[in-house]
Amino acid sequence: MNLILFALPETQIPLPRSDPRARHLTEVLHCEPGSTFDAGLIGGTHGKGTLRSMDAASLTLTFTWNPAPIPAPEPLTLIVGLPRPQTARDLLREMSSLGVAALHFVATEKTEPSYASSKLWSTGEWQRHLITGAEQAFTTLLPEVTWGRALAEVISALPAADSRVALDNYEAANPLSAFPALAQPGLTVALGPERGWSATDRTQLRAAGFTLAHLGTRVLRVETAAIAAVAVVWAARRRM
Amino acid sequence: MNLILFALPETQIPLPRSDPRARHLTEVLHCEPGSTFDAGLIGGTHGKGTLRSMDAASLTLTFTWNPAPIPAPEPLTLIVGLPRPQTARDLLREMSSLGVAALHFVATEKTEPSYASSKLWSTGEWQRHLITGAEQAFTTLLPEVTWGRALAEVISALPAADSRVALDNYEAANPLSAFPALAQPGLTVALGPERGWSATDRTQLRAAGFTLAHLGTRVLRVETAAIAAVAVVWAARRRM
Repeated sequence: MNLILFALPETQIPLPRSDPRARHLTEVLHCEPGSTFDAGLIGGTHGKGTLRSMDAASLTLTFTWNPAPIPAPEPLTLIVGLPRPQTARDLLREMSSLGVAALHFVATEKTEPSYASSKLWSTGEWQRHLITGAEQAFTTLLPEVTWGRALAEVISALPAADSRVALDNYEAANPLSAFPALAQPGLTVALGPERGWSATDRTQLRAAGFTLAHLGTRVLRVETAAIAAVAVVWAARRRM
Repeated sequence: MNLILFALPETQIPLPRSDPRARHLTEVLHCEPGSTFDAGLIGGTHGKGTLRSMDAASLTLTFTWNPAPIPAPEPLTLIVGLPRPQTARDLLREMSSLGVAALHFVATEKTEPSYASSKLWSTGEWQRHLITGAEQAFTTLLPEVTWGRALAEVISALPAADSRVALDNYEAANPLSAFPALAQPGLTVALGPERGWSATDRTQLRAAGFTLAHLGTRVLRVETAAIAAVAVVWAARRRM
């Protein structure tokens, strides 16, 4: 944790000693009463936290927040075929670190439907991985996340003006880096599930204005392909 | 495993049932006598393997190899501050998948010396992760790997004509994507260890002709930064 994130209501009550942030403050940062640390409000400003006092049950913290305006999220939407939960955990954390604005895990013909009923989703655990990624990256902004909706439904809800590119190792003629609209705001990049797009998926994507593009001849893990795709977009925007 | 890799001597003797490749052939691919599978020679050609027979102890395989020439590795050398073993495992696998030519894990002022005595290195386990990454990516080429040498020693052994860029969140003025020589053959990219470069490291790097460049304002895990850096280079070369 390079930054410790809090939801606004959490800043107004004592932090239980059992909370991982309390353990981080006492066991990793070795905070004592009077110590300060880098803190952020989820979706809000950065600032400093101060440990005021601690007892067996909780830590009492106070905060001062910077008046600086909150930066807008970088306009990039990622659609990914719903992966196995461990892959989804890695994607949630890394896409949050890299700063995509929205992340939609979609059902396609070749996704495994049971993945949508994982406790990752049903317990809200998914939010924790977003926060871990943001804390690593020293940001307070979390991506918007959805899961389990059909590819067609997510596509139909995209802003009409967005540029659209789908990654495909098999039928794409050009690399992602050659897609002309990478640097324009309003871009959606779609990655297939582990087993790839079906013919029906490709027809839907093309009908919705997606251009197919590839990430080279090598078959990459979904997590690696997602990081690489975002890096290619950030490079085109000279952010990386 | 999208491709099953063998060292040449291994293709001339039965494959023990205890070998992970034997288990993959029988339990995942459900091969039976007569079944064929995608095979490769490490550092060599692609081809097809055929399961001829199997008994309780081993599988008997035969191979036919394509006459196609072996592609040269993509000219990119990566230097990384020696990380904790789990991070090194991920880097070995992913850099092999992405196809860097050489990967040097170096000792710097802020690396933890004990990491170099991990069993990852002493037992040769590191090679297994390279092979896993290559099998994922459907390639027979493995990066050249070294570990534990000092940064200065690795730098001094680089080809004099190589372009050189070092990633640094703190002192770099421009993003990696703006570095002019990304697309030229003979490029070395250096990433610091988890705790960053020291002042001495930066002095050494600058004296050796490295330009400092950044990957944005967000603090990324070393594994993520390495994948992103390679993606930025591959994008400049229109390979991704």
